[in-house]
Amino acid sequence: MANSSIIVRLELDHQLITFGDVAAAISKAGGDITSIDVIRPGKDTSIRDITIDVADTVESELVATLKQQDGIKLINVSDRTFLLHLGGKITTQPKIPIQNRDDLSKVYTPGVAKVCTSIAEDTNKAYSLTIKRNTVAVVSDGTAVLGLGDIGPHAAAPVMEGKAMLFKQLAGVDAFPICLDTKDTEEIIRTIKAISPIFGGINLEDISSPRCFEIEKRLEQELDIPVFHDDQHGTAIVVIAGLLNALKVVNKRIDQIRVVVNGIGAAGVSICKMLLAAGVKQLVPVDRDGAIVFGGKYEYPMWQWLAEQPQVEAASGLLGDVIHDADVFIGVSRGGVLSVEAVQSMGPDRIVFAMANPTPEIDPELAQPHVRVLATGRSDYPNQINNVLVFPGLFRGCLDCRAQLINEPMKLATARAIASVVSESELNEHYIIPSLFNENVVNKVRHAVIETAILTGVARRIPRDFR
Amino acid sequence: MANSSIIVRLELDHQLITFGDVAAAISKAGGDITSIDVIRPGKDTSIRDITIDVADTVESELVATLKQQDGIKLINVSDRTFLLHLGGKITTQPKIPIQNRDDLSKVYTPGVAKVCTSIAEDTNKAYSLTIKRNTVAVVSDGTAVLGLGDIGPHAAAPVMEGKAMLFKQLAGVDAFPICLDTKDTEEIIRTIKAISPIFGGINLEDISSPRCFEIEKRLEQELDIPVFHDDQHGTAIVVIAGLLNALKVVNKRIDQIRVVVNGIGAAGVSICKMLLAAGVKQLVPVDRDGAIVFGGKYEYPMWQWLAEQPQVEAASGLLGDVIHDADVFIGVSRGGVLSVEAVQSMGPDRIVFAMANPTPEIDPELAQPHVRVLATGRSDYPNQINNVLVFPGLFRGCLDCRAQLINEPMKLATARAIASVVSESELNEHYIIPSLFNENVVNKVRHAVIETAILTGVARRIPRDFR
Repeated sequence: MANSSIIVRLELDHQLITFGDVAAAISKAGGDITSIDVIRPGKDTSIRDITIDVADTVESELVATLKQQDGIKLINVSDRTFLLHLGGKITTQPKIPIQNRDDLSKVYTPGVAKVCTSIAEDTNKAYSLTIKRNTVAVVSDGTAVLGLGDIGPHAAAPVMEGKAMLFKQLAGVDAFPICLDTKDTEEIIRTIKAISPIFGGINLEDISSPRCFEIEKRLEQELDIPVFHDDQHGTAIVVIAGLLNALKVVNKRIDQIRVVVNGIGAAGVSICKMLLAAGVKQLVPVDRDGAIVFGGKYEYPMWQWLAEQPQVEAASGLLGDVIHDADVFIGVSRGGVLSVEAVQSMGPDRIVFAMANPTPEIDPELAQPHVRVLATGRSDYPNQINNVLVFPGLFRGCLDCRAQLINEPMKLATARAIASVVSESELNEHYIIPSLFNENVVNKVRHAVIETAILTGVARRIPRDFR
Repeated sequence: MANSSIIVRLELDHQLITFGDVAAAISKAGGDITSIDVIRPGKDTSIRDITIDVADTVESELVATLKQQDGIKLINVSDRTFLLHLGGKITTQPKIPIQNRDDLSKVYTPGVAKVCTSIAEDTNKAYSLTIKRNTVAVVSDGTAVLGLGDIGPHAAAPVMEGKAMLFKQLAGVDAFPICLDTKDTEEIIRTIKAISPIFGGINLEDISSPRCFEIEKRLEQELDIPVFHDDQHGTAIVVIAGLLNALKVVNKRIDQIRVVVNGIGAAGVSICKMLLAAGVKQLVPVDRDGAIVFGGKYEYPMWQWLAEQPQVEAASGLLGDVIHDADVFIGVSRGGVLSVEAVQSMGPDRIVFAMANPTPEIDPELAQPHVRVLATGRSDYPNQINNVLVFPGLFRGCLDCRAQLINEPMKLATARAIASVVSESELNEHYIIPSLFNENVVNKVRHAVIETAILTGVARRIPRDFR
């Protein structure tokens, strides 16, 4: 899975080595040559750029081999992924050029003064006269980045920039990365509130649990723009979308299934909440110490909340116990925690979402023979649960109707909209989730979000196509 | 000076009025028709957009006239300046498109992980692998915006966006507006530090005095990227640039002149500091209560600092007293505080910089007959002191050499570079400052800044053209 495309620049001494020898050495070391560019031809020596596909595990070995070889001078090795990131991945552009003093006097002093005055008299005008109406902050403190953990705000930036690219490319939303040099909950809340005036929405990203709950909740209460922690709700929304379609495939009703959710962290809590909102009547949340049971007492407020929901089962036990007869397993936990035997103990027409990254709760190859529908977080198997399906359309909708916040009905509507992109005729075990590049996703999500925002009273503007 | 271009949309009833009547009415009310677009032609009625140049003072009167007229239905009035600001003035763009899964896997997960890891191992790599190396925050709390005072962070945004446009257009710097919803000095310092990882520089803007001094000083000490309060130093640098050229015109040496600076706020303090750094030996700082004198005791730390400089005169008095025999008057104070008599009491070959906005310290028409060189902050007189000459090239240089901070020698070098754009043969009383649109300004400033940063040991990278 983890392959790199590297470019090596070599100077060859034709007395000592032929290109055939070089190609053979690369091949033997596990590399696959995909292209060759002659940079400087010559009779005695030549310089060439060789692009090589190579597994990450053997990349350094291959480079070492080339270094040792007589007749080869290794000038440079560059990784194509690194090259794509050089200088960062987004840029800020003026919408109109400033070509002369007249332009300048309109966009800057003195003309800008009356625009400022107009906003000072009515702050709502920031939505028409500034970038607020189309701009989202992608905010992280770098504490839970991908599967890498607490790598700090500088190292988190490439992910936030990538997300800003996706916002623009998929939904036309201007997004800007904000990487916070603090891990203190109150300080993060204060900082985001302080910088909020220029933004129309806040996308929280890769903030570790349990701080992420408090940060999101408080910002939601204290700001009048939508706040969305993608790691919690993005995954949850796609899970629900996939589940709705998987249930159609196996012909079961959501109010009649028994669902085990393994891993009750940021994403797991949000998944449980959405399952309940979607109508699930038998829910078994499971963490390291076993099932969270109805009537139990728990330290984490979110676990306690779950223990108070009547749809949560009262029977305790570890995952291997409580999974008996379950219709659905949803894992957002750790690689390898789900055994084949456990899967076999589930009810008929099993649905398994094994989303631990990069190693799923159960090896997809092992699980496949025993389940009807299998989904993972990976792109090399069918049914990838990927939150890129959610945030572009969701924020597009929120910005277009100036939603004050993102409520549970809006999240559920987003899940339904994503599910609806897969038509009845297309739907099957291997296709319950649309592709990230399906152009209908953003539009359908946007429409559902706006409709629900209007119905639930959180929209502050009715977009033209809804009038 | 204050003219607007407005667009009125009118429906005309041809039974009651002709277009000739409309044109006459507009003309009579003080408007100048610059274009006409027929939106919907018709036999009985028609709809037209009429673009009109009109003085701000009579705009509402003109609109009222059109409303009252029989046969005219006024559908809409829009102001071209407002139209230019609709939806904000900057946008965020991906540098490369994400067209397929392979692109996505390089700029986002899973490929981005190794880029993140690389930065986590060496934070300096943020300069090569993220937008940090070309990105500046334009930060304001909205407390001292233009001449409008404390209008709040939302209303400040159009100015910060305009500045971001200028950064990009004039110097290729990516700039993003940050408008702070707090006026607390410590909170502002904390917030800017917290969001600093993604930025390569901080441009403070329109923050009221005296908080701006503490905020800039502390950030300079506590961050390792350049921090620059434009209202203080931007103006000061252009003043010094203009003064250097004005002294050439009148053939005086900077160490032999007596300079009165009126208005010792944010810009005035920085001007005084730079005058001393540039070699002025006789300085008279003046505020509302009169001259700040050598050996005096003052509450504001900046005034106290001035009172301890041996170049500051010991004689006290109000502006009208101390200006006698001065060679140079520099005003960053209030409209109308400088009388013709006071100017007449100055020494020969008088240099007057009257930069209060929008009304200068002395009416330029009144001052002109009595001075050799006159400069103002206004674009409708020669020699406009405009800080747009400074920040684009200054930050371009700082980013290119990864300056840790902006020191006094770098500011002075910037002033000298701006002055040098006006050649000996071009130099005269009415041309001491280059145009904002002179393409040599940014390059010359960049070069001087990098050279000085290297010499003074604050550059962390030697740009290719300096190797």
